[in-house]
Amino acid sequence: MKRIVSIIKVGGNLISNEEILNKFLSDFAQLEGLKVLVHGGGKLATELATKLGIETKMIDGRRITDAETLDVITMVYGGLVNKTIVAKLQAHNCNAVGISGADLNSIQSVKRPLKEYDFGFVGDVVKVNSSMFSLLLNNNISPVCCAITHDNNGQLFNTNADTIASEIAVGLSNDFETHLYYCFEKNGVLKDINDENSVIKKINSASYQKLLEDKIIADGMLPKLHNCFNALNKKVSQVHIGSINMLHKNNTLKTTITLK
Amino acid sequence: MKRIVSIIKVGGNLISNEEILNKFLSDFAQLEGLKVLVHGGGKLATELATKLGIETKMIDGRRITDAETLDVITMVYGGLVNKTIVAKLQAHNCNAVGISGADLNSIQSVKRPLKEYDFGFVGDVVKVNSSMFSLLLNNNISPVCCAITHDNNGQLFNTNADTIASEIAVGLSNDFETHLYYCFEKNGVLKDINDENSVIKKINSASYQKLLEDKIIADGMLPKLHNCFNALNKKVSQVHIGSINMLHKNNTLKTTITLK
Repeated sequence: MKRIVSIIKVGGNLISNEEILNKFLSDFAQLEGLKVLVHGGGKLATELATKLGIETKMIDGRRITDAETLDVITMVYGGLVNKTIVAKLQAHNCNAVGISGADLNSIQSVKRPLKEYDFGFVGDVVKVNSSMFSLLLNNNISPVCCAITHDNNGQLFNTNADTIASEIAVGLSNDFETHLYYCFEKNGVLKDINDENSVIKKINSASYQKLLEDKIIADGMLPKLHNCFNALNKKVSQVHIGSINMLHKNNTLKTTITLK
Repeated sequence: MKRIVSIIKVGGNLISNEEILNKFLSDFAQLEGLKVLVHGGGKLATELATKLGIETKMIDGRRITDAETLDVITMVYGGLVNKTIVAKLQAHNCNAVGISGADLNSIQSVKRPLKEYDFGFVGDVVKVNSSMFSLLLNNNISPVCCAITHDNNGQLFNTNADTIASEIAVGLSNDFETHLYYCFEKNGVLKDINDENSVIKKINSASYQKLLEDKIIADGMLPKLHNCFNALNKKVSQVHIGSINMLHKNNTLKTTITLK
């Protein structure tokens, strides 16, 4: 029987609030079994860029990453956020190691092809090094992955954290039973964006189409759900979307995504 | 017979020059056997602090580290410099992982006690986790260590990179034969600071006392040599000081430190 690995992505808006971050990390540390954390840090990166007089340009919620923005991303995601999280996890007796995709050659990517826009130093994942993740997990070490990858030719790339989480889950699914959790500001996918209690408890491929037609799922939820179905189509066992409270065993308030 | 591990420290002034950094990393990647890299980044940290309007205060060459300076250190050492080095090493087929002392709980420290000055968030090393270093090295993974440690209670500390290098060498000396290399701007310890060819090829405990009395060793070299003798007194096999060319097999221009 395969061992279970939980892959938990936490968004940048949550971790920029220290109280929420501390609560989340305490829960993550207590979570039973093998686990991987994937974090963003966009809000803090924008703050640093502003202080340095670097303009932040976004298209469809994705950051245009020129050379100096990549430095900001590397400092904030790979340094400040990643090391702060790892130090806090160690204080909770969770043996963590903070990595980018360059570390251990864990996640390789290619520059996003030029289409309508040039996103600059933004990478699309091409390979997850499952043997390196297995080495860590089999030694009870939790990888803490920042949203940076590399091309194995010396170039770092800014990469969407939701995508990294689903690609890691997919990459580990041959060796482990993988459970993917997206933690964000809401309690799950909402029927009514203004009603926190309108969580849709289950979405499958058929009901997803209906939700799309009814325009209940739109904007930022679209790429997130795309990542969810991509993961399920590639052997990930479970996919959930919800708040950080979702890590508690008996929490029922979340959206579970399934194929059928 | 114990396997040899080379622990190589490279200074912040060297790595802020991209050409020198590239040459150094190419040589490091080609170095045979197990290896650990320890890097500073002080020059780049001072540059970022200046851009952010944070005043840099030094006492005896050591940085006073208040909370916002610690953030700068964490961003520059743990993020920008560390991830840049790791990505470049991967391009040279050297499987590296960039870590702070918090990662894998690899290096624990305590806040430097208040004496004449309060250095702020500066830590003195108390424990090197040799089992985690062994796990990496035995899997042909090269740790790339930035000059940051933690107290295992959630606090990161700025820590002198020379000291980190010698403490790692000491910590690994039970399990490995350790060779410690300090790479800096000069070809070695110089008899005449203005003459690059005046390298003192060997220094032992007795000649060290003489060099101190004659004031040939002073200022920044004092703590470096203190670290060298500390390492030798605690079972480190070899200690060398020189330029990055020292990594070449047949390079003879360097200072080798011995006890007798």
